[in-house]
Amino acid sequence: MRGDPVGLETYWNEDPSDTLRVRQGFRLDEVSTSATPGFDGDKSDAAESLAEGSLILAELQEKLYAGAQMGGDPRRVLLVLQAMDTAGKGGIVKHVMTAVDPQGVQVASFKKPTEEELAQDFLWRIRKELPEAGMIGVFDRSHYEDVLIARVRELAEPDELERRYEAINEFEAELAASGTTIIKVMLHISTDEQRDRLMKRLERRDKHWKFNPGDIDERMLAPMYREAYQVAFERTTMPHAPWYVIPADRKWYARLAVQHLLIDALDAMKLDWPVADYDIEEQKARLAVS
Amino acid sequence: MRGDPVGLETYWNEDPSDTLRVRQGFRLDEVSTSATPGFDGDKSDAAESLAEGSLILAELQEKLYAGAQMGGDPRRVLLVLQAMDTAGKGGIVKHVMTAVDPQGVQVASFKKPTEEELAQDFLWRIRKELPEAGMIGVFDRSHYEDVLIARVRELAEPDELERRYEAINEFEAELAASGTTIIKVMLHISTDEQRDRLMKRLERRDKHWKFNPGDIDERMLAPMYREAYQVAFERTTMPHAPWYVIPADRKWYARLAVQHLLIDALDAMKLDWPVADYDIEEQKARLAVS
Repeated sequence: MRGDPVGLETYWNEDPSDTLRVRQGFRLDEVSTSATPGFDGDKSDAAESLAEGSLILAELQEKLYAGAQMGGDPRRVLLVLQAMDTAGKGGIVKHVMTAVDPQGVQVASFKKPTEEELAQDFLWRIRKELPEAGMIGVFDRSHYEDVLIARVRELAEPDELERRYEAINEFEAELAASGTTIIKVMLHISTDEQRDRLMKRLERRDKHWKFNPGDIDERMLAPMYREAYQVAFERTTMPHAPWYVIPADRKWYARLAVQHLLIDALDAMKLDWPVADYDIEEQKARLAVS
Repeated sequence: MRGDPVGLETYWNEDPSDTLRVRQGFRLDEVSTSATPGFDGDKSDAAESLAEGSLILAELQEKLYAGAQMGGDPRRVLLVLQAMDTAGKGGIVKHVMTAVDPQGVQVASFKKPTEEELAQDFLWRIRKELPEAGMIGVFDRSHYEDVLIARVRELAEPDELERRYEAINEFEAELAASGTTIIKVMLHISTDEQRDRLMKRLERRDKHWKFNPGDIDERMLAPMYREAYQVAFERTTMPHAPWYVIPADRKWYARLAVQHLLIDALDAMKLDWPVADYDIEEQKARLAVS
């Protein structure tokens, strides 16, 4: 279906899986929110590249799904999306994941926990939404809220926060060991860009439902959130559960980058169509006379 | 967004919501599987019409979702897809539902029940997958299997089957009363067309995973399945839970027809963007100085 190695589709001159990956010594405050690292094109080039990637992604996803349906391949993918409001999580779900058969995608949005959820360990509600074998699971917010907003808003004691980083690492190690490829993404926008996007939501009647007065309160705490992200990166970046920070002031770049991370992850799984577990010629003969 | 009344987009000369609806006196054995009732075009016209409908469907779905997010509108849609193997349920999910934001769609596939599921009432596993407020739920197979395969394969006693029709009617009445618009679709293909499609699955390496030797066994029972469908239509067609039988030998027609049923159902809900539950000017002022 394509001749180039993954990571080198049109206009990419670096592999975003390398470039955007959080490594030892990473500092969030040194990351530009408006850059387009590794991509050598503009918005219209990006549209072309996204369309190209959609076909690749769709085929890889179908192989992932097929493997679980026949042959019992236990593998699956979990894409975790974290960001401040308006950074574009919803747009990624809409513009990247629509390329894929809805039957093979499970989207879970984690809002403010309910009373029932608060009465349980913080991972309880997360476990219920994990993707099954063959699926791509997308978390719109996640268990990381429990060390982000929980830290900034002091919703948990310092000891409990400490425990949670460890619990997250154990949890993700367990997922990885049972066949889950984990991709953790933070979409990074500037406070100015966020103001513009929130203003747009206030100006457009068809966007009012996306705004909540609490979004401004959260916005005022942006510096504290950045610190909390920095700590989360330092405590929970693992070879089997990497973090990627994606400059997101340009929506088209963020979408393309996430699509690319997904393609790379699926490609690394060396997926192929499963081998028939029945005798093909025998079944053809049966079918012909049926 | 469009000037024509719903049901009269390009190439449609009748409203499929009328034409395809199961009514008193309906006989499945009188329905052509290869016709394209109400549609005045060919495959390429259909592609154009599907693209047009996708934009309409996407906007309606976003309004449905928005209403639940702000304003607490409890309404939702449940699309039930039933058919013999290869009739195109999966293709409908893929080609109709990809138009819609994945965040607003829940697809549930009901396979052979597990031990745990069999130990419960047949509606137990169904209830767990019902769409939440604002969502479009799609059932790939459904509780109707419990009066279709269960009848044909004698997996339940006659008394229990009788009870199930009633239980289904009560269940669907309850869903409708709590704000669910129900659309029940049977995709209808000929046995010849089914043979061709199964053969294609056997001939193509990338389709082998979609084939199961049991598909041929089921195929041999097609006349009995048609009878079971006929009974199901007679027993469970209700004003709030109508059945539609869609000729499906032409995939492009079936997809377009289902898209149209969805559009009509959403249009009839008179959806609009929810009204802001905050003071817009006050929030603009707060945001400007944040």
